[in-house]
Amino acid sequence: MVLQRTTVICVISAVVGVALGLFIGYFSRPAPTAPIYPTENPTISKLLMDEMKADNIMNNLNTLTSRPHIAGREQEEIVLVDWIKQQWTEAGIDSIVVHPYEVLLSYPKQNDSNYVSIKLANGTEIEQSQRKELVIDEEQNDPNVVDPFNAYSPPGEPEGELVYVNYATIEDFIALNRTHNISTVDKICISRYGSIFRGDKAIHAELYGCIGLILYSDPLDYTVPWSEVYPKDWFLPPTGAQRGSLLVDDGDPRTPNYPSISSAWHKSDSSLTLPKIPITPIGYIDAIKYLSKIGGPEVPTAWKGGMNITYRFGPGFAGDHVNSSMKMSVKTTNQVATIRNVIGYIRGGVEPDRYVLLGNHRDAWVFGAIDPSSGTATLMEIVRGFGAMLKRGWRPRRTLVFCSWGAEEYGLIGSTEWVEELQKELRARAVAYLNVDIAVEGNYSLAVDGVASLSQAVFDAAKSVPNPNPSEVSSGRPTLYDTWKFRFPASVGDKPSYHGLSSGSDYTAFLQIIGISSVDLRYTYDESIGLASYPVYHSVYETFELVENLVDPGFKIHLAMTQVWAELARKLADVLILPVDCRLYASDLAQKRDVLYQQYGSKMETHGIEFSQLNDSILIFTTSANSIHERIASIDSTNAYETRMINDQLMQLERAFIDQNPLPGRVSYRHVISAPNQHDTYGSTAFPAVVDAMFDIDNDPDQAGRWDEVRRQYSILVFHILSAAATLNPTVPTT
Amino acid sequence: MVLQRTTVICVISAVVGVALGLFIGYFSRPAPTAPIYPTENPTISKLLMDEMKADNIMNNLNTLTSRPHIAGREQEEIVLVDWIKQQWTEAGIDSIVVHPYEVLLSYPKQNDSNYVSIKLANGTEIEQSQRKELVIDEEQNDPNVVDPFNAYSPPGEPEGELVYVNYATIEDFIALNRTHNISTVDKICISRYGSIFRGDKAIHAELYGCIGLILYSDPLDYTVPWSEVYPKDWFLPPTGAQRGSLLVDDGDPRTPNYPSISSAWHKSDSSLTLPKIPITPIGYIDAIKYLSKIGGPEVPTAWKGGMNITYRFGPGFAGDHVNSSMKMSVKTTNQVATIRNVIGYIRGGVEPDRYVLLGNHRDAWVFGAIDPSSGTATLMEIVRGFGAMLKRGWRPRRTLVFCSWGAEEYGLIGSTEWVEELQKELRARAVAYLNVDIAVEGNYSLAVDGVASLSQAVFDAAKSVPNPNPSEVSSGRPTLYDTWKFRFPASVGDKPSYHGLSSGSDYTAFLQIIGISSVDLRYTYDESIGLASYPVYHSVYETFELVENLVDPGFKIHLAMTQVWAELARKLADVLILPVDCRLYASDLAQKRDVLYQQYGSKMETHGIEFSQLNDSILIFTTSANSIHERIASIDSTNAYETRMINDQLMQLERAFIDQNPLPGRVSYRHVISAPNQHDTYGSTAFPAVVDAMFDIDNDPDQAGRWDEVRRQYSILVFHILSAAATLNPTVPTT
Repeated sequence: MVLQRTTVICVISAVVGVALGLFIGYFSRPAPTAPIYPTENPTISKLLMDEMKADNIMNNLNTLTSRPHIAGREQEEIVLVDWIKQQWTEAGIDSIVVHPYEVLLSYPKQNDSNYVSIKLANGTEIEQSQRKELVIDEEQNDPNVVDPFNAYSPPGEPEGELVYVNYATIEDFIALNRTHNISTVDKICISRYGSIFRGDKAIHAELYGCIGLILYSDPLDYTVPWSEVYPKDWFLPPTGAQRGSLLVDDGDPRTPNYPSISSAWHKSDSSLTLPKIPITPIGYIDAIKYLSKIGGPEVPTAWKGGMNITYRFGPGFAGDHVNSSMKMSVKTTNQVATIRNVIGYIRGGVEPDRYVLLGNHRDAWVFGAIDPSSGTATLMEIVRGFGAMLKRGWRPRRTLVFCSWGAEEYGLIGSTEWVEELQKELRARAVAYLNVDIAVEGNYSLAVDGVASLSQAVFDAAKSVPNPNPSEVSSGRPTLYDTWKFRFPASVGDKPSYHGLSSGSDYTAFLQIIGISSVDLRYTYDESIGLASYPVYHSVYETFELVENLVDPGFKIHLAMTQVWAELARKLADVLILPVDCRLYASDLAQKRDVLYQQYGSKMETHGIEFSQLNDSILIFTTSANSIHERIASIDSTNAYETRMINDQLMQLERAFIDQNPLPGRVSYRHVISAPNQHDTYGSTAFPAVVDAMFDIDNDPDQAGRWDEVRRQYSILVFHILSAAATLNPTVPTT
Repeated sequence: MVLQRTTVICVISAVVGVALGLFIGYFSRPAPTAPIYPTENPTISKLLMDEMKADNIMNNLNTLTSRPHIAGREQEEIVLVDWIKQQWTEAGIDSIVVHPYEVLLSYPKQNDSNYVSIKLANGTEIEQSQRKELVIDEEQNDPNVVDPFNAYSPPGEPEGELVYVNYATIEDFIALNRTHNISTVDKICISRYGSIFRGDKAIHAELYGCIGLILYSDPLDYTVPWSEVYPKDWFLPPTGAQRGSLLVDDGDPRTPNYPSISSAWHKSDSSLTLPKIPITPIGYIDAIKYLSKIGGPEVPTAWKGGMNITYRFGPGFAGDHVNSSMKMSVKTTNQVATIRNVIGYIRGGVEPDRYVLLGNHRDAWVFGAIDPSSGTATLMEIVRGFGAMLKRGWRPRRTLVFCSWGAEEYGLIGSTEWVEELQKELRARAVAYLNVDIAVEGNYSLAVDGVASLSQAVFDAAKSVPNPNPSEVSSGRPTLYDTWKFRFPASVGDKPSYHGLSSGSDYTAFLQIIGISSVDLRYTYDESIGLASYPVYHSVYETFELVENLVDPGFKIHLAMTQVWAELARKLADVLILPVDCRLYASDLAQKRDVLYQQYGSKMETHGIEFSQLNDSILIFTTSANSIHERIASIDSTNAYETRMINDQLMQLERAFIDQNPLPGRVSYRHVISAPNQHDTYGSTAFPAVVDAMFDIDNDPDQAGRWDEVRRQYSILVFHILSAAATLNPTVPTT
């Protein structure tokens, strides 16, 4: 008994002792003194996608398009701004900042809007064009519907002979002058919309001496023979006219390079880079009246539109109207107004000083159901979705920034002023800018443009999103990616087509001023049917009903766009090592070099330019790109400084292609690898400064000077590729 | 007994149990899985200082000055480069890279060097100037001694009337023209050295129509009445002539903005921004011959030099020589040569992608015992010292970069080309650039210029270095700092004077192109004795003997310079939170505003410029600066991302003041707060674009245009201060 009792006591003592020891021992060991940082939670991907709903997007679109919301007016700058702030506040994101800018906008004259007409020799005006588009939906009667006009046209009433200039490309004017010997000096030109940015049409017309420019939508470019027009199908009705800005240099034209904040200096009105000739758009219901009466030789086939007339150059009218002239009445004027960007933040839990930005513009020419409110409707649902994840306790590694831009339609004004204002922070902190302007302009396929280094990240995001089209799914293409690859295959490799960015939406300032890796996503129509854009683009017919009934009934495509955009952002914001692939940039450079060589190589070599320098620089870049990815493969992922160092190199790759000086003749574009085409802001030019210098070089009387400029730009290109390669190398060289 | 025994057993059981528990408990707790990063080891400071020796510096200087080592020649680009590589390799640093650049230099003609003379009416030349400086030391007979010349002067033999233009400042020429009604058109001008950079003298002379420019060293500016000249004391002997470059735009003049690498494009010879009139320097042994014969009215007191003559304006000679003219014979020509930078690295153990750079140029006009080899001798000892610390197992947190620049004398060419080449990496990674050009040009006091945010860090480093002057120590000033504060007290506050950087040495590209926080250190002479520079500056008399016998016998001052430079670098490289004080920048901005207001305030306000905008922006900056230092005080120092974020904000502060566009009329300077003066590259101008626009504004016939430019530059300044403030705020705004 005694022994037993002793044993029991001893055992108890020992057990208590062990327990005590365990307790003391456990807590006497120093706890980790460096924080363990949370890592990516991949389950969020599906939770987030499941959270977002088509019905919400539909309701967002309905709200956004309930009234016209042109930039600078109350509905856009007060009502929708307040609504977005309220929605984002409810979503529970960390902070919301509104950035106002006082900028120069442009409007037609209320109750005395623009028209064109034929003026008879006796002074009578006949065949006046429609001042308004035909009312089809009741909501069009809203007094805030702004009649068709081209922003930044000066007012004026020019009269003169009419000349048809096709798409008003630089090549069209060169052909008119050199091949057809038709002068446009002191003429009123009429150009069809399409092929290039309308602002470049205006520049070309001015350059070639025109005194006015009429822009019209030809049925060939905005309808198809086998279908009806809106409201029966989505093709452009006869009175539909394309509004649009003529501004070529982005941002407030009064404050180039600097933000339009309250202390800003403004250029004087007379020194602004704006069109000097009156310009206004018309529908094809009117264009046929003038083009059917035009004289002169018949145009070549490529110049012919889709109206049942003989297309002729002019100048002037023929037949009964040989003594009549074309007249324009343009009352468009510039006005200073306040525009607003709404910027929302979800703070990164680990790296709050690294930004992944999602941007979409808010302003529309009229209702904007496609452009841009389809995008805004998805952005709103993304913010709500991320907010819901926050409420579950999730927080991204990096900061998510949601941007609702003002006054994009006028010339990317809101985004440009903001990038100009925050350029120092963005240069240091921005990982990527993901733009959706129009989310859904058709139901054919996803289409994405972007920097080469993000293509795989975009592909991966698209692979994770279910296909919104059941017939595609049953054809064995279960994801967005599958249909994209099937319908828009890349010319090389088993992947979808993915091209460089030009301009035309809000990624421009991010990529061209700062060098931020950018992508632009949309769901588009079948380009093979030959449309210049989706047909009702910038007309009064971009209504909620159009989208609900014709473009995306059920809003499933909108939902898919929401999911792919959100997933790409989530990945960029959350994954430890940024999904930026420098090797893809290397291949892209090699492809661009091949295209340059094919187009200009022998001519350049004849003038003493050594292509080996470009080849060598791309080889060096390729070696550096491969080496950084080898280092990534063996990285110590627990070392915060090592991962941050690599991520900084990946993030800054695009910065390395930004020249300290703007490209020749450009106000703010500085990207030496890819920039908007000098004669078409909608087009993308590889190696832009070199290609610009080569343009039409044979006809330059100063051959020595021009070739010296080609050599100069070529050396700047080679330098930048070498320089970018160096940024990818280990930060301390090994001897 | 039994109970006792039981008790003993139980106690043993319990003790064993506790021990067992301790063991299991201790090791069952997970060990830290995130790396613990090494932190600053402050004991290295003293070890490093003790490691470095005056004798080594002396030996370095002896080696460096054994032969002339002008840029582009073998001694400089091969022999010394190899020696440095070998020394640094022995020091055991991690890597060494040599960067060669092929650049445009300039030399006089061997065996037919420049002179000036008086040409009599009959064509005879008399009073020819010395082509060489008098040989005092045997080593001057080295055939590699380059005779006095001004680099980048064109060759030419102009003849004409002589006009004395004082220091050839813009104010001097304005006074000549407006007050004294003396034209310099088609005249040969003679200017004394001093007051401003000689390259600006050349620009002014050209601007005012001179056909040639003679630069001479006046005894007033390079000697004192109470002492003898070299070799008895360090003052300038009569034949001593100041070599020096005339280049105003830094870097290879053929490749502005881009590096002179093998693929570089070069400007044509005819388009280079170089002097168009012949220019050459002479000693006062010659100047007196010409100035004593000059006619015209007597100059005002401020224009009088120290020669025993009556200083007159001219034009032309008087008396016997009224029909004689001044003649120049300049054979200086430009030559392409290869220059080299030697760059050494000690890899940072924690943040290898953050650079603290120490730079000094290597090239000298002749022997360069003061300029720059006193600096090079200290740099060599610093590298050896840090190498010794590496061998002890120490490694700095950040990467140390040691830079030996080529061709600084010609126009900061080596450093500028390198910054142009590595601009992308430097923009992302450079913490600070610490320049020592001349380490010791006198024995009076330390003198430091630099960005405001580093002043406290410099003060702290200077406080840690023992005073090399025993009499200062016995006067109660035991450190470098004490003598500095005593001899150069700041105008405000109990601290030493510390001013902004102008140009004139290799920090310029770092600060003006990239916006890297920079400082420039030297030990100098007593400025109150009225010297234009240390007397034998750029003459053949800058020899080892001069330094050993007259400037710093025992090399104790050199050692102190080594210590302060090394300690500042060590601190910046090793401390967890960068010693960058944004609040000091705020005070500096406020001071600069006061100076601007005092000078131009009422005039600017009269023209509608609201000073409240500048005041408000500085207040906002001050608030942001205070707030970041409050956040630093409560930082979680174990959080790698948090410390890195704050450090990045501190590092990037200076970047925020770099405009995307160069300052008006400048090729590469972009710093809106402080830049070299537009009329004197050696001078520093606060708010340079605004001040430049205000210069002599009352005499501009285009008043409206000039004031519009002032308003434009003022708005750019305000924007940058606001922008810089924003970079210091939390990276995610709080609503």
